[in-house]
Amino acid sequence: MDTLWDTLIVDCRLATLTDNGNAYGAIERAAIGWKDGLITFAGAAHELPGPPESLARDVVSAGNAWITPGLVDCHTHLVFGGDRAEEFEQRLNGVGYEEIARAGGGINSTVTRTRAASAEALYAQSVPRARALVADGVTTIEIKSGYGLDLPNETKMLDVARRIGRDLGITVRTTFLGAHAVPAEFAGRQSAYVDEVCIHMLPAIAHAGLADAVDAFCEKIAFTPSETRRVFETARGLGLPVKLHADQLSDLDGAALAASFGALSADHIEHTTTPGVRAMAQAGTVAVLLPGAFHVLRETKLPPIALLREHRVPIAIATDLNPGTSPLVSMRLTMSLACTLFRLTPEEALRGATVNGARALGLDDRGRLAPGLRADLVVWDIAHPAELCYWLGGTFARSVYAGGEKVAG
Amino acid sequence: MDTLWDTLIVDCRLATLTDNGNAYGAIERAAIGWKDGLITFAGAAHELPGPPESLARDVVSAGNAWITPGLVDCHTHLVFGGDRAEEFEQRLNGVGYEEIARAGGGINSTVTRTRAASAEALYAQSVPRARALVADGVTTIEIKSGYGLDLPNETKMLDVARRIGRDLGITVRTTFLGAHAVPAEFAGRQSAYVDEVCIHMLPAIAHAGLADAVDAFCEKIAFTPSETRRVFETARGLGLPVKLHADQLSDLDGAALAASFGALSADHIEHTTTPGVRAMAQAGTVAVLLPGAFHVLRETKLPPIALLREHRVPIAIATDLNPGTSPLVSMRLTMSLACTLFRLTPEEALRGATVNGARALGLDDRGRLAPGLRADLVVWDIAHPAELCYWLGGTFARSVYAGGEKVAG
Ligand SMILES: [Zn+2]
Ligand SMILES: [Zn+2]
Repeated sequence: MDTLWDTLIVDCRLATLTDNGNAYGAIERAAIGWKDGLITFAGAAHELPGPPESLARDVVSAGNAWITPGLVDCHTHLVFGGDRAEEFEQRLNGVGYEEIARAGGGINSTVTRTRAASAEALYAQSVPRARALVADGVTTIEIKSGYGLDLPNETKMLDVARRIGRDLGITVRTTFLGAHAVPAEFAGRQSAYVDEVCIHMLPAIAHAGLADAVDAFCEKIAFTPSETRRVFETARGLGLPVKLHADQLSDLDGAALAASFGALSADHIEHTTTPGVRAMAQAGTVAVLLPGAFHVLRETKLPPIALLREHRVPIAIATDLNPGTSPLVSMRLTMSLACTLFRLTPEEALRGATVNGARALGLDDRGRLAPGLRADLVVWDIAHPAELCYWLGGTFARSVYAGGEKVAG
Repeated sequence: MDTLWDTLIVDCRLATLTDNGNAYGAIERAAIGWKDGLITFAGAAHELPGPPESLARDVVSAGNAWITPGLVDCHTHLVFGGDRAEEFEQRLNGVGYEEIARAGGGINSTVTRTRAASAEALYAQSVPRARALVADGVTTIEIKSGYGLDLPNETKMLDVARRIGRDLGITVRTTFLGAHAVPAEFAGRQSAYVDEVCIHMLPAIAHAGLADAVDAFCEKIAFTPSETRRVFETARGLGLPVKLHADQLSDLDGAALAASFGALSADHIEHTTTPGVRAMAQAGTVAVLLPGAFHVLRETKLPPIALLREHRVPIAIATDLNPGTSPLVSMRLTMSLACTLFRLTPEEALRGATVNGARALGLDDRGRLAPGLRADLVVWDIAHPAELCYWLGGTFARSVYAGGEKVAG
């Protein structure tokens, strides 16, 4: 009996995202089974090695529903104290950015509130955001630090992030983003803060095993390319892979810098040009596009989609969930925005939300439906995969499985 | 005992949207009660006429949650056969509008599929869209016909719309939109189709009591102002109020035409100018803004918000839920889009989704929280009303009540 699979879903259609020659890697009249959290079968039902009831403990009929890999949200700042809804309202009432900043608004207000929150309070505020993502199909979430900006508070954020993953039964990948902003106590001493990040914070975080990767915000209003390089060299010395907030507001050759460190991903990249794209292609660096921030900031400078396609740079998409520029708690809405604003095709958007998102996190055990991969999958109430990008709003996930266990629906 | 209220919610905050001098008509430390579907009390808890348990059969403590009126979606084409997700995908893969139309796509495909569907099938396809709206706070939905384009199929659509209201326990207001498009069998004979609408269809629909209002699509690609006038004169003769799809793609003085008939609303109105806005103000015609279609079509011509404010024209917002230009199934997302794209304030957006939406339907018994009004209300998991517009995605309604009965949550 021990050789029985745990679950087998029959009467379904699979968007495997494997290269089987069909759009979406589709398989009609399919079945998918798993055991101990790993997929044992994903294919045409007539290729099953026996009658369903002989194969698995639980056999579920899905009424011809579509099944995709679990969605991967590969770039979030999901753990933060407070929100900035009132600031959002002030701006719409005509209050300027400067005035808001002078009154302690902007990222500083999030840092203040994140520091002030106990780990318990921070968890209580943050976990509903993760639940919202999971409820509509997300099974892997990257969460960055970067609102603590000192060792105890960055540690607190990463601890909370890890706990969210454990409690919801999903995968959380943590990224240390100490080089997100300069905290008030280092005002005017940016270089000293970079010292603090490289000499104290990052090594301590790495030794505590709290970070799966290291990120930085390389921008005129944030850290310079040479400061970014220092952070990345420190990460390399500690054996941690890097990612970069690159070329969002201006072209600082951030994408090329990231690629030169073999970065997992360069994110935003609205202003990246050919040399950066070429460097990413050569390094295997994933382009992570963030249409939520583009929408909220009403940006007009599109990321270089045609170049990315031409140079075959894998494109991922993510919520960028954060309180200032992207209070976006849905990967389906992210996919829709990517299609409408960036003109990705629905298949590109779905690949960006699954297999390429996984790659942006250095994970090759998920993001497609194939034997041996993790049983992270979603059963959807849709008649065609393009509907995942077409509908705006609502919840279309009927059941969400992470590592073979149902986590929503 | 019969004088007891049915339910009393205590420990809550109310966004009453009444003119009590506070933003959102807010009342903190509040309570709200109702009996037989009507609000009996909405005010500060210390003004309750007795201890809570002495006042109501059920006393619910809301943990200081915010309560707003139930949301009103005052412009939808929610009942339709099929969807157009594959067409959405074709366009993103570079197929042109003309090619899609030649292949039977566009509105014609929706007409074909709506006609082909049995009432039962049409209901089964449509009701999940209404459920999605209700799940996040909607208690009143306007639903237009306009994909049947002959008497039996327009009747079928309106019957299905009414059944959705009954089955979900919410209010559905039906609008006859025979003058939506010219059906294939009248190709090249638009005037004859308008005859059909005015002489046969509309009188029959009115006599069957299936329509609460009459709408038309006045646009260069649809019906002319003089054809619209004929439809409106027929409606007036039958005692039905009118609304108009006006000035969306070009300025045909549609808003002024609507106002000259005392229309409940003029909808879209991106191209409306001062005379039209002035006419609306004088006639008491509501401006219904539809940011979903604006977003999906990537329009750039904004509706005349400043003029509407200046002339004190009530602004409502709605999903415009339809398969071609606005597959939007969330009023919260509509509110968010109205803020980000149209720069409405969150309070304007909430008023547009409640009291002004109700007014666009000729309903003065809802849209605010005050004694005597319908007990249509939503308990939200938010800490500030602006959050309703701030978050993108997710479900924030904890409980939704329509006529005092819980319909979601
Ligand atoms: Zn970010
Ligand atoms: Zn419409």
